[in-house]
Amino acid sequence: MDEAGLRALIDDISTGRASPDDAVARLRRLPFADVGDALVDHHRALRQGMPEAVYGPGKTPDQLVRIVGELLGSDGAGPLLVTRATDDQAAVVLAAHPGGVRRAGCVAWRLPPPNTRRSERVLCASAGTSDVAVLDEAILTLEAYGFAPSRLVDVGVAGLHRLLAHVDVIQAADVVIVCAGMEGALASVVGGLTAAPVVSVPTSVGYGTSLAGVTALLAMLSSCAAGVTVVGIDNGYGAACAVARILGPCQK
Amino acid sequence: MDEAGLRALIDDISTGRASPDDAVARLRRLPFADVGDALVDHHRALRQGMPEAVYGPGKTPDQLVRIVGELLGSDGAGPLLVTRATDDQAAVVLAAHPGGVRRAGCVAWRLPPPNTRRSERVLCASAGTSDVAVLDEAILTLEAYGFAPSRLVDVGVAGLHRLLAHVDVIQAADVVIVCAGMEGALASVVGGLTAAPVVSVPTSVGYGTSLAGVTALLAMLSSCAAGVTVVGIDNGYGAACAVARILGPCQK
Amino acid sequence: MDEAGLRALIDDISTGRASPDDAVARLRRLPFADVGDALVDHHRALRQGMPEAVYGPGKTPDQLVRIVGELLGSDGAGPLLVTRATDDQAAVVLAAHPGGVRRAGCVAWRLPPPNTRRSERVLCASAGTSDVAVLDEAILTLEAYGFAPSRLVDVGVAGLHRLLAHVDVIQAADVVIVCAGMEGALASVVGGLTAAPVVSVPTSVGYGTSLAGVTALLAMLSSCAAGVTVVGIDNGYGAACAVARILGPCQK
Amino acid sequence: MDEAGLRALIDDISTGRASPDDAVARLRRLPFADVGDALVDHHRALRQGMPEAVYGPGKTPDQLVRIVGELLGSDGAGPLLVTRATDDQAAVVLAAHPGGVRRAGCVAWRLPPPNTRRSERVLCASAGTSDVAVLDEAILTLEAYGFAPSRLVDVGVAGLHRLLAHVDVIQAADVVIVCAGMEGALASVVGGLTAAPVVSVPTSVGYGTSLAGVTALLAMLSSCAAGVTVVGIDNGYGAACAVARILGPCQK
Amino acid sequence: MDEAGLRALIDDISTGRASPDDAVARLRRLPFADVGDALVDHHRALRQGMPEAVYGPGKTPDQLVRIVGELLGSDGAGPLLVTRATDDQAAVVLAAHPGGVRRAGCVAWRLPPPNTRRSERVLCASAGTSDVAVLDEAILTLEAYGFAPSRLVDVGVAGLHRLLAHVDVIQAADVVIVCAGMEGALASVVGGLTAAPVVSVPTSVGYGTSLAGVTALLAMLSSCAAGVTVVGIDNGYGAACAVARILGPCQK
Amino acid sequence: MDEAGLRALIDDISTGRASPDDAVARLRRLPFADVGDALVDHHRALRQGMPEAVYGPGKTPDQLVRIVGELLGSDGAGPLLVTRATDDQAAVVLAAHPGGVRRAGCVAWRLPPPNTRRSERVLCASAGTSDVAVLDEAILTLEAYGFAPSRLVDVGVAGLHRLLAHVDVIQAADVVIVCAGMEGALASVVGGLTAAPVVSVPTSVGYGTSLAGVTALLAMLSSCAAGVTVVGIDNGYGAACAVARILGPCQK
Amino acid sequence: MDEAGLRALIDDISTGRASPDDAVARLRRLPFADVGDALVDHHRALRQGMPEAVYGPGKTPDQLVRIVGELLGSDGAGPLLVTRATDDQAAVVLAAHPGGVRRAGCVAWRLPPPNTRRSERVLCASAGTSDVAVLDEAILTLEAYGFAPSRLVDVGVAGLHRLLAHVDVIQAADVVIVCAGMEGALASVVGGLTAAPVVSVPTSVGYGTSLAGVTALLAMLSSCAAGVTVVGIDNGYGAACAVARILGPCQK
Amino acid sequence: MDEAGLRALIDDISTGRASPDDAVARLRRLPFADVGDALVDHHRALRQGMPEAVYGPGKTPDQLVRIVGELLGSDGAGPLLVTRATDDQAAVVLAAHPGGVRRAGCVAWRLPPPNTRRSERVLCASAGTSDVAVLDEAILTLEAYGFAPSRLVDVGVAGLHRLLAHVDVIQAADVVIVCAGMEGALASVVGGLTAAPVVSVPTSVGYGTSLAGVTALLAMLSSCAAGVTVVGIDNGYGAACAVARILGPCQK
Repeated sequence: MDEAGLRALIDDISTGRASPDDAVARLRRLPFADVGDALVDHHRALRQGMPEAVYGPGKTPDQLVRIVGELLGSDGAGPLLVTRATDDQAAVVLAAHPGGVRRAGCVAWRLPPPNTRRSERVLCASAGTSDVAVLDEAILTLEAYGFAPSRLVDVGVAGLHRLLAHVDVIQAADVVIVCAGMEGALASVVGGLTAAPVVSVPTSVGYGTSLAGVTALLAMLSSCAAGVTVVGIDNGYGAACAVARILGPCQK
Repeated sequence: MDEAGLRALIDDISTGRASPDDAVARLRRLPFADVGDALVDHHRALRQGMPEAVYGPGKTPDQLVRIVGELLGSDGAGPLLVTRATDDQAAVVLAAHPGGVRRAGCVAWRLPPPNTRRSERVLCASAGTSDVAVLDEAILTLEAYGFAPSRLVDVGVAGLHRLLAHVDVIQAADVVIVCAGMEGALASVVGGLTAAPVVSVPTSVGYGTSLAGVTALLAMLSSCAAGVTVVGIDNGYGAACAVARILGPCQK
Repeated sequence: MDEAGLRALIDDISTGRASPDDAVARLRRLPFADVGDALVDHHRALRQGMPEAVYGPGKTPDQLVRIVGELLGSDGAGPLLVTRATDDQAAVVLAAHPGGVRRAGCVAWRLPPPNTRRSERVLCASAGTSDVAVLDEAILTLEAYGFAPSRLVDVGVAGLHRLLAHVDVIQAADVVIVCAGMEGALASVVGGLTAAPVVSVPTSVGYGTSLAGVTALLAMLSSCAAGVTVVGIDNGYGAACAVARILGPCQK
Repeated sequence: MDEAGLRALIDDISTGRASPDDAVARLRRLPFADVGDALVDHHRALRQGMPEAVYGPGKTPDQLVRIVGELLGSDGAGPLLVTRATDDQAAVVLAAHPGGVRRAGCVAWRLPPPNTRRSERVLCASAGTSDVAVLDEAILTLEAYGFAPSRLVDVGVAGLHRLLAHVDVIQAADVVIVCAGMEGALASVVGGLTAAPVVSVPTSVGYGTSLAGVTALLAMLSSCAAGVTVVGIDNGYGAACAVARILGPCQK
Repeated sequence: MDEAGLRALIDDISTGRASPDDAVARLRRLPFADVGDALVDHHRALRQGMPEAVYGPGKTPDQLVRIVGELLGSDGAGPLLVTRATDDQAAVVLAAHPGGVRRAGCVAWRLPPPNTRRSERVLCASAGTSDVAVLDEAILTLEAYGFAPSRLVDVGVAGLHRLLAHVDVIQAADVVIVCAGMEGALASVVGGLTAAPVVSVPTSVGYGTSLAGVTALLAMLSSCAAGVTVVGIDNGYGAACAVARILGPCQK
Repeated sequence: MDEAGLRALIDDISTGRASPDDAVARLRRLPFADVGDALVDHHRALRQGMPEAVYGPGKTPDQLVRIVGELLGSDGAGPLLVTRATDDQAAVVLAAHPGGVRRAGCVAWRLPPPNTRRSERVLCASAGTSDVAVLDEAILTLEAYGFAPSRLVDVGVAGLHRLLAHVDVIQAADVVIVCAGMEGALASVVGGLTAAPVVSVPTSVGYGTSLAGVTALLAMLSSCAAGVTVVGIDNGYGAACAVARILGPCQK
Repeated sequence: MDEAGLRALIDDISTGRASPDDAVARLRRLPFADVGDALVDHHRALRQGMPEAVYGPGKTPDQLVRIVGELLGSDGAGPLLVTRATDDQAAVVLAAHPGGVRRAGCVAWRLPPPNTRRSERVLCASAGTSDVAVLDEAILTLEAYGFAPSRLVDVGVAGLHRLLAHVDVIQAADVVIVCAGMEGALASVVGGLTAAPVVSVPTSVGYGTSLAGVTALLAMLSSCAAGVTVVGIDNGYGAACAVARILGPCQK
Repeated sequence: MDEAGLRALIDDISTGRASPDDAVARLRRLPFADVGDALVDHHRALRQGMPEAVYGPGKTPDQLVRIVGELLGSDGAGPLLVTRATDDQAAVVLAAHPGGVRRAGCVAWRLPPPNTRRSERVLCASAGTSDVAVLDEAILTLEAYGFAPSRLVDVGVAGLHRLLAHVDVIQAADVVIVCAGMEGALASVVGGLTAAPVVSVPTSVGYGTSLAGVTALLAMLSSCAAGVTVVGIDNGYGAACAVARILGPCQK
């Protein structure tokens, strides 16, 4: 519970606007709702500046329908994402809550229209074609936040000239997300080319010694490019949230 | 090599200010100097906005003396760090290059004076007393960058009231660095309390199942607080560089 | 074989109530029955105060039918569980032995009726909605033991206010089971909020760096909250058994 | 912060005994003291029923002297432990704060006198002679809590008759702590012999494939004896705290 | 190539019975046949006293048909096994080569009839019902070697009385194979009860922290019972071959 | 971008053949084409002497059709491979681009005709029948490069006489590729028999402790035969490319 | 406790030779003695046919002196080993108990004289010179058992001719112990050359990817030579005990 | 044993130049000598084209003196290396066998004089200053083979311009050895810049998530630059031997 809320409550109590019992009750009346097996957190957007997002895997379509319903019903016009939705989950939840779109492995409602997007330059780059699923999860999440990210695919370090051809795009970005599997070297090279924040996402692309993303993860964490940060394997959503933290709430 | 430099070179050539041979020579005359086994990179500060830093381990005192000499001699008045210096390394290099200070496991020269520091609020928090070595490496590096970080120690999640007592400091920060070993849960809790960027540093503090920092690392990467980013184990220097990337060059 | 039984046998022999051959025979007539590939242990309930439980995976439906039959036929009215039963296993075994119920991934027979439940307060809390399968295995097992556990879902540490809203429930509990995947931090936070026993269950929820529960496992074992104990990944059944050991046989 | 404290504070405010500013101030005046790099938590004993304990490794002797001083000075007559103290740490801190004793790798002050000990039967058993260091850390901690644990050494499963000779001691115990390295099988066997809580501690004893305790840890977590719980490798202190949680505050 | 064969060849050459070219040719005419992608080794039975065995996984049914055909056609009346055969592989190969039997996950031809079996007492014991698949692969292989193994199932260490009820069978065995998953403690306990060779097989039974057999493997390798040996995870076939090496060729 | 290209460009600029804007444009007009999510690298063959190869997994059939189309259309008559193609991918891409062949898990177009093959002796050997899939990926790739590799299967070290029968083939080879799973010992033995380059490929053949190729990988990297090199698990394609690097461009 | 002993006891009781109290007392009077922190097991030699052995690491010299004293004093003339003794341990224990010898990292008392040795041929082979420490621990233990092992050093597989030169020694052995680090391939090759039992010991020799013996361990467990068994890393003592189990008690 | 030798032997026998007994004796008289615990392999140079090399770690100075003596005495004038020699080993062995030099952690005798070196261009590059120890082991070994390698240090990918400044040196090399720790990305970048063979050596440089070289190892094995090969961690010697295999015996 944040300081301001506590102070307001105390004020109410000390001025008689709230009895002790009321006070305890209000402390209980926290800004989330119980929808079965989930406590839906209505004001997270407010508290952390994030759009609502529901992690799909392991939830039944029925649970998703209830959670999405609660969030769409009570949270104004903010965007809402279901990430990593299977086709089955997507079909059921879209039937129950029309108006959403299926994109990049997610289902999204109420994305900000393109003409309202923020002006910061967020570059999302991937080493290979196979990293695109993760890259696009990041891009969709950024769009839900109101950004207009650009996209650069297949610039892995073994073909350095392809990367160098885009060096000005890299150096012009306010933040860069780098998605790479295999040996994950793209994060280090990009980190050396720009002074802007670089959020790297190891992907589970590759086989054998790629160890489902662990190799890229370790490589990114061991990067010789100082100040490169890392999120979990395949976590495009998390990288987008990190960018949103970095660029802060919109100042329009 | 950046775009602008290449374009300038091309201009010089096409206008006759540089012959083809000169052009190739200039491409060779890159902004670093060879001091034995290291290519000292003079203009990294310029290119990436970073103070010079030399990683101590594995270098002989003699190598350090030469590298530090090159950097102090040719790089104006910018700050310079030797990180993870052993006592022996520190003694030899300070004897050869007086004027430095020994702090937080590092040796530093030409730190910006306190009254010139930048105004952004950078909070550096650690879960336990034993994480302080890593925390202080981050703080010293931030000072070399010109920041005036604040420091919050021993606020691990098992004593939640200690952490909650500082909730307003956490929520007021522009960026937070979290250093934690053992189960590394502090990153998740702080990430849930603030919408600002959180850079987490797993530390090798703890024993047995802490696996020398791997447990905290995995926990931070798996954080349920979206958008928390991670750097390598014990890498306080890297976390500070990530903060510098996030806050960008000084705009005073 | 326990001391008391041995002493009784010796008494019988020395008083002539049993011949040496009888004695060896009785030692052989141990309280279990051979039903094909399993030695069904009828008196474990007696010896360890546990309801009968059969681990489903890897057993053929036919094996399950025989084992359940032996246990239902010869063990009075005690409860019986088949854990982690697939739908196929459940269908076959319920057809052969009607009267059971399918719940929480298990099949249960002869659960104690709600009005006979024990009065100790056992709280079962999970960090996320996706941990519910493991949580409910623990709850069902506790009910088979005769407890009336309460259930608290989706109180992960990244939304600390949700957890704090239930702090009195946590502090009132006689024992707490904590199920959490991802970074598993909930165990540490709950361990810091209560002096009661905390049995934590890492779950395989999460992806990438969650490493199918290993991250949560390591984090819980490294908890900075002293005295928190851990059972195996996804082992809700084991956590319930640990609670039963802690609270001991019913004393009504 | 616990519910009761909050309710009391609210009462004070609503009755005018505290102004809003006072209220915030009191929220800040939490029961711990800042002694340099540590927030000493005076009332943890109260809140969690634990004696004070300071983890030695990674702290300078000077830090230890200050923390111990704070704890001895302000916390009545409760017991105090420094665990895993090196000989150097022990010498310095005992010189600064006389009256402590060096035992089982720890330094202890104000242990409860033997004639005041609690009556529950806590059995501490180890598989081999080499596990004794961990076992004794558990025993000393239990004594600090006011227990009078018994001690059973060298009863590893390869010599089953040694273990079976003590079967009545095992079955009479209210709680059992099992310390074992190598293959850690003792926990399973003891768990099968008693219905009481079994807290198992993997130790880093053994070499090669013992993997510094990881083998025993995994074996204990995979135990076929349901309801056996586990703490971290070599964490005798944690096992004792788990026992204290299980047996609860003294009811004399 | 063995010494004796070389010496014989040399004799033939020096006595003129073989020309140099013949000699080289004979060195080439080694006792195996090329059947497409496999070099079928006809005389391994002779050289190592083993029945023929073909590892099923990864081979196409067609490859199996060819290999089995070669082995059945040219190797007298010795037994032949295809291990780990899928149902598809078994169906195809049995259709092509009638007379085999499907048992224990294998297909076997020409098993020695029961009345010709060797008299050594080989005991095959498993900790749980789920280990039976591995146990039975070992038993079938032993039968192919001409042994008459006995079988003891579900004697895991958590129910020590079940194991102790069979202590005389264990102590009467000439060799014991122990199959166990989970914590694999049965190998240590059996190893402590007998002075005979104990070959232990970790099985992939169990879940979570059993790590698909790695936990049992490590535990068996770290056994406190000296002289217990280990083969690979789930390798019942290998354990049987180890027993055959130990008991040597039949001496009837 | 290579030196020569840069020097040529500079020449053009300084002689007026290219304006500064043209120069930058030409730097952008790099030898690859954007076909949706992939930057197809037309001149890699030129730059690195490699045939075009597209890694199949993770790409949609549609992406493959576009990439293959681009490569077939603009790259003269060079060979083209799609590696690790599923049956679905193969069917779709062959329908869209007839003339290719399906072999060894790949799809290949424009393989050099047998009578044009290079004369170096490349030997590809595998330890077992199950390694053949990896071996054949290497062989097909070598054929695309224009080599005429020979093939030696099922010469694992446990039947040393099978291997020794081919010792002259091994010693006559210019380069040897060794594919082996399980314990991967074949690489060491072959490495000891020849002074030629040995490129070893660990395969994921085997089960249990083979750890899906990690055991063979570690064994090959730890080989006591000095100078043996290793590529990633199951990476037959990579091994063939290593051979092509070693033998260099054709000198006919 | 073995069956025979129990039956004898029962006879005594039923015939009046022992009262019930005597019976329980006799059950307690088990064949081991308590010497402080160790239960010295006098009759293990009898029960398992093993010489006494004390594992040195982790024991204080004082503990060793007491344990060795107990064993030498009460166990007739049987051999006694302290394995892995440091120089300090060895010096103290030899001073307290003269007559022992320091060899192969151990201290040994009452080794059987050479002329009394058993006639079975036990071959101990190591891949490299650096494995000799482990090899010699095995050899000394075998000598304590009364064997006369032969010793073959530096026959690693990369120099196959060195190994093949000893093929007759290998094929003549009744049992072979193979010690190898690095890739551990020697076990597979020897296993293919003989039908006798092969006990392999991975050693921690090698660096980097040898992973302190884990690579050799995994390789030996994955051996393509069926029936090769494995003991723990560096466990020469365990391998010798396995051989003693295989060859059984002396039958002279 | 190679084919040619066998054929020669057979010739001698068949022509009466050798009796059968002589033949066996000659087979025994293999080209190595027993110097205590090592079989010194005199003709490996001949057989595999390698200079003699002795791996230092784990050998006593006395063993080294004997092995070096045997090699220097009987092997003509070929070069000899002791790798990874400690200062103590180096001092003792140089005192016993003067004429050697201490360089790059090794001791070397009879290095080919610079003016006799081979003309192939071997480039040895390292990412950082700290990789120099491994790099120099490779360089010294190459010199022992008769090469004249060039050396390029501190060209890690985070400062791409430093690497690109040497692109012509890289592209002119006949073979490249790349030594890199941390994320090991240099191997991929170099592999993309040249079509020549690239042998990469992961180094144990870096801390935390570098995992003592495992991160670089995995990254190099997962390289997106096809055909890059890898040797074990820190194995500069092995990389040089791989180069010698690639370039073959000198053809001057």
